[in-house]
Amino acid sequence: MGNTYGHTFRLSTWGESHGAGIGVVVDGCPPRLALTVEDIQRDLDRRRPGQSRLTTQRGEADSAEILSGVFEGLTTGGPIAILVRNADARSGAYDHLRDLYRPSHADFTYEAKYGYRDWRGGGRSSARETIGRVAAGAIARRLLDEAVGIQVLAWVSQVHDIGADVDRDTVTIDDVEADATRCPDPVAAAAMTEAIEDARRDGDSLGGIVTCVARGVPAGLGVPVFDRMEADLARAMLSLPASKGFDIGSGFDAVTMTGRTHNDPFVPGPDGRPTTTSNRSGGVQGGITNGADIHFRVAFKPTATISSAQDTVNTQNEAVVLEARGRHDPCVLPRAVPMVEAMALVTIADHWLRQRTVDVLDR
Amino acid sequence: MGNTYGHTFRLSTWGESHGAGIGVVVDGCPPRLALTVEDIQRDLDRRRPGQSRLTTQRGEADSAEILSGVFEGLTTGGPIAILVRNADARSGAYDHLRDLYRPSHADFTYEAKYGYRDWRGGGRSSARETIGRVAAGAIARRLLDEAVGIQVLAWVSQVHDIGADVDRDTVTIDDVEADATRCPDPVAAAAMTEAIEDARRDGDSLGGIVTCVARGVPAGLGVPVFDRMEADLARAMLSLPASKGFDIGSGFDAVTMTGRTHNDPFVPGPDGRPTTTSNRSGGVQGGITNGADIHFRVAFKPTATISSAQDTVNTQNEAVVLEARGRHDPCVLPRAVPMVEAMALVTIADHWLRQRTVDVLDR
Amino acid sequence: MGNTYGHTFRLSTWGESHGAGIGVVVDGCPPRLALTVEDIQRDLDRRRPGQSRLTTQRGEADSAEILSGVFEGLTTGGPIAILVRNADARSGAYDHLRDLYRPSHADFTYEAKYGYRDWRGGGRSSARETIGRVAAGAIARRLLDEAVGIQVLAWVSQVHDIGADVDRDTVTIDDVEADATRCPDPVAAAAMTEAIEDARRDGDSLGGIVTCVARGVPAGLGVPVFDRMEADLARAMLSLPASKGFDIGSGFDAVTMTGRTHNDPFVPGPDGRPTTTSNRSGGVQGGITNGADIHFRVAFKPTATISSAQDTVNTQNEAVVLEARGRHDPCVLPRAVPMVEAMALVTIADHWLRQRTVDVLDR
Amino acid sequence: MGNTYGHTFRLSTWGESHGAGIGVVVDGCPPRLALTVEDIQRDLDRRRPGQSRLTTQRGEADSAEILSGVFEGLTTGGPIAILVRNADARSGAYDHLRDLYRPSHADFTYEAKYGYRDWRGGGRSSARETIGRVAAGAIARRLLDEAVGIQVLAWVSQVHDIGADVDRDTVTIDDVEADATRCPDPVAAAAMTEAIEDARRDGDSLGGIVTCVARGVPAGLGVPVFDRMEADLARAMLSLPASKGFDIGSGFDAVTMTGRTHNDPFVPGPDGRPTTTSNRSGGVQGGITNGADIHFRVAFKPTATISSAQDTVNTQNEAVVLEARGRHDPCVLPRAVPMVEAMALVTIADHWLRQRTVDVLDR
Repeated sequence: MGNTYGHTFRLSTWGESHGAGIGVVVDGCPPRLALTVEDIQRDLDRRRPGQSRLTTQRGEADSAEILSGVFEGLTTGGPIAILVRNADARSGAYDHLRDLYRPSHADFTYEAKYGYRDWRGGGRSSARETIGRVAAGAIARRLLDEAVGIQVLAWVSQVHDIGADVDRDTVTIDDVEADATRCPDPVAAAAMTEAIEDARRDGDSLGGIVTCVARGVPAGLGVPVFDRMEADLARAMLSLPASKGFDIGSGFDAVTMTGRTHNDPFVPGPDGRPTTTSNRSGGVQGGITNGADIHFRVAFKPTATISSAQDTVNTQNEAVVLEARGRHDPCVLPRAVPMVEAMALVTIADHWLRQRTVDVLDR
Repeated sequence: MGNTYGHTFRLSTWGESHGAGIGVVVDGCPPRLALTVEDIQRDLDRRRPGQSRLTTQRGEADSAEILSGVFEGLTTGGPIAILVRNADARSGAYDHLRDLYRPSHADFTYEAKYGYRDWRGGGRSSARETIGRVAAGAIARRLLDEAVGIQVLAWVSQVHDIGADVDRDTVTIDDVEADATRCPDPVAAAAMTEAIEDARRDGDSLGGIVTCVARGVPAGLGVPVFDRMEADLARAMLSLPASKGFDIGSGFDAVTMTGRTHNDPFVPGPDGRPTTTSNRSGGVQGGITNGADIHFRVAFKPTATISSAQDTVNTQNEAVVLEARGRHDPCVLPRAVPMVEAMALVTIADHWLRQRTVDVLDR
Repeated sequence: MGNTYGHTFRLSTWGESHGAGIGVVVDGCPPRLALTVEDIQRDLDRRRPGQSRLTTQRGEADSAEILSGVFEGLTTGGPIAILVRNADARSGAYDHLRDLYRPSHADFTYEAKYGYRDWRGGGRSSARETIGRVAAGAIARRLLDEAVGIQVLAWVSQVHDIGADVDRDTVTIDDVEADATRCPDPVAAAAMTEAIEDARRDGDSLGGIVTCVARGVPAGLGVPVFDRMEADLARAMLSLPASKGFDIGSGFDAVTMTGRTHNDPFVPGPDGRPTTTSNRSGGVQGGITNGADIHFRVAFKPTATISSAQDTVNTQNEAVVLEARGRHDPCVLPRAVPMVEAMALVTIADHWLRQRTVDVLDR
Repeated sequence: MGNTYGHTFRLSTWGESHGAGIGVVVDGCPPRLALTVEDIQRDLDRRRPGQSRLTTQRGEADSAEILSGVFEGLTTGGPIAILVRNADARSGAYDHLRDLYRPSHADFTYEAKYGYRDWRGGGRSSARETIGRVAAGAIARRLLDEAVGIQVLAWVSQVHDIGADVDRDTVTIDDVEADATRCPDPVAAAAMTEAIEDARRDGDSLGGIVTCVARGVPAGLGVPVFDRMEADLARAMLSLPASKGFDIGSGFDAVTMTGRTHNDPFVPGPDGRPTTTSNRSGGVQGGITNGADIHFRVAFKPTATISSAQDTVNTQNEAVVLEARGRHDPCVLPRAVPMVEAMALVTIADHWLRQRTVDVLDR
């Protein structure tokens, strides 16, 4: 019972890397939302393997089928089930993993937890699971766009030690999609590409940072004290494969600031409401959005799968050497971008719907 | 409906800074656990104000009363309600906050969300709310200690730019409690004390980092794909007042490592199970504990309340100056330590109980 | 984790019959609702013991204290905690129950489940637990009255074999409260009173039926397929102590009807929407309200506590005789009325709030 | 967000009568359970249309495909997704329903709730939705059988005014499946068959009662105070299409009994635990099972679809006549039996798993 996310806009994902397919059920999407399979495919295409030479070459079109919840182009209010069949599953390629534990993968921990595991390509722990999330995120994107005007955009802001110079307030989806790295700084993108290709050639892998911004978020979203906006975003991001850290607004940089330099001063705003002259809060104060852009960062570790031999242990607790094999991404960052967006979208959609149950009496 | 945390071991907190009191209801604690009010008071005393000159001088004994769920010294399996009356509430001291929004506090966002707010000392957004969490954490601590042998320990590892040198594997609670800063490195602790006192004198405030370790955690805890251990810990920590970031294991430092240097090699372990020679995973792989210590960091911003005049806006959207007043901590870090521990304890207790519903068939 | 009810309007009750007190935390009540302790006390007074010679003579004023969530007479949107101290707890009167299991009580099953029990007056299984529900129901009553105009009214429609003749469409709260039985048919009420007093004198007890109606409920409440309105009402009612059955609309009488006589014909309604000429559906079709009154029945068994000696078994699995003792109601029906109303109120309030997350796009 | 049922053993259903298909995702099923598609198909075959002349003639094989969560014949602990494609959907047959509301169906209420509806065969409100429940119930059946030895069995105990004479303690699945009515009393079954065929010929429909028993249930299942076993069963049953009432043990008959005749006397049991000489409690006391068989009844109304002309209203609020058309069951009772079993199975499985989080400390 850990495969469901959200309180009101709620997704349940299922499926394994080399099983019949991957899917998601979205429950709680409001009715009468125009939704087509293309809306979903667009984001799936940004997540799918084989988009560029930077990503794994597994050949998957990741074609989505909407099985329920949409009638004559509009959502019905019922659960929306989406199915993506696995096409290029090559279980045989994983036979050598049946009896050993890959370092820093979930092979051992799945075995410890469940006493049993689908060892084909990581089974449920594969990043293919995020197909369901990205599909659900595409629905949330439609809802937030149509009903509220909220836009969520993420990009690669760092790969290994190569940081990007990006204007958080003005960067666009076209800027991000302009390069296969999904880094909108062309100079950094070129360096990242070279670093990733070097790592691949060297049988190694790289980590990095995705930065995400949500624009047009109204003040008032987020529910104290446990379902704070930043708490739910943190959970959402740390539930992504390979993520190791999250911070919002000033984040870890806040540590070395002082109250005087860190506080966001309020000034009278144009619409009768205060606005802030800085946004170290990251758009959230006390767990509730303040109307400024939400912005946060997610740290990803270097891909655990590398094309080098590694020492490890087999299921008999014997030392063995894991030979390098299989198809994998030398750096997950470019494909992590739509995953981060998806989890941010479903989180914000959930909170936007929840706020409708709060603001019910005349002000 | 955001004041409840946990799936099986579940706490619901209530109360405001200057209302009648603060409390918590813990539902799902197993029966027959020996529990006394002293078990709870011990942790509350580490959280309460006025412990040292580094903390706010509000005079609160924070005396807990157990109202239900414990009979003749043992838990009954029913909900455990705990009440702490507010004693030193001075609402008058906050009259000037009725009509203005303090920078980087939740005054404006509560108003935006609820259209109404208890302006006395921050109301529900006050860190006094964490009394309920710390009380619940003390119960979880008893449970994990008696039933599993899990120990959770946190400390201040950085204040502003002063980092501490601490051996994560050997540091003890006595080391932590030896100094009012709750930094177990005496040299750093002395520097932190001076920095905090300087900040106070200067009408300013400081941020920092709390590091937390959980020892004795069995492999197998955490539920893919959304209720991963690190995801739930991230949410738990980002739900704490003033927190801005979370990372686990190598965390943000993973970004500049490569797969070859980052992966934790497995070697045959003494109990027939593999163990790792490093712990960059932070005790969690694929969302599930691997038997190594869990370790993570939480970043806290400098206290938003400072003893300096600040520009801000009133409820009429007019620019005003906020004069410095009231009792507050110039640095929340020392008192954040028991809060971090409490949220880690309840999270791990919840997952330990959940795992009992997974491991039900003979292996 | 079974002491919380509701998805959005959510109550958590705690407390035992002879512990420190009984309470409830209501999370999810919208802000800016006018609420006083008198609003709550009014319903508690209808539930409390000692109201008439028909009920137990335990002397409890059941005085409520609002501990949080209300500021200057308005709800804040934060959790509302309510405390009722136990005043007339006489644990000594229950010493003889420490080692035996009362027939058709929960003594044995609590022992079986928890391996431990608070044997004082039934502990958590006592009907005193419903104080928290009734207090939460009073808040829901205020909300539904102010925000929607929904009214919920219940009454005793049968005691033992004495049925009442009541016009479901016109009966008022004053009619119900006119008699200590809470049966609004004066002839039946007199006969019920006599039957209850006879049973008491005879050391016996009686069961009966409570009928409940909700008026002014808009069409559209209830969430297919599991959270249907009637499903949630059924759960709510069967969670009340001593309840044995629930039916809605035609209920069990539907069994012997045919489709032709049972279907509710639609006719054009005055507001551009269809209305029905009969209401065998009980105001709910397909799990969703249709705008007609919701009406349902709840069956209660005769009180398990009787003033007669009974054969039973002690904790050593030995046959013993339970002597009659203690204070109890010979018929729970009069006091069950506010409990049924409370559970209906919180269920409908929850669904009314939930519907606000469905109806979000322009029609 | 009403399409998920269960706390720990959790099912989420999706799909419409005339969409692409119907499905379910079961999350929380323990790993290492032997499970085949035949286990699921067996129960689906008892639910599917066209089994006998008593049921609708819609031609559906209802063939299940397991898409995830099972690997080499064993459950993995991951979510189990099951898909049943619709084969004999004839949307055209429902064109005349696009603009009108069938009496006592959910057409109007879905429109009222969602402002939009899939009018093809009732869409989501069709009893085809229960395919997902029955599939999930088959998994729960496997789990309870293998891990606990619990058996759940239901049968038709009444159709219209024809009651059956059945020994609740000894009736078997073979007895139930021996007749197309699923009534194990052959005399009553013959009369029911005749009555149902008469009703069909007459363009009418009949209701009835399903009785259900769960054997081998250990004492201690059910969670006070809201998640009592009978409360969850009541909700489960009232969430089934066409159900109107639920009672447990003595149920509505308890009303006319007295405490002396109703209480179940305890006597010393053979295993050191008390047992009862009667079972008017229905196997549940205070919301917790006592080790006796659980037994309860569910009332179903006569099918709302009848082959007779009916007065109704169209979406323009105009009076119209609904001509009889389409394929339907003149009496849902025979096919309701596996639905009732399924909901009982998943409810008991959920509570059995939950109890494992309660009984964790040494007794």
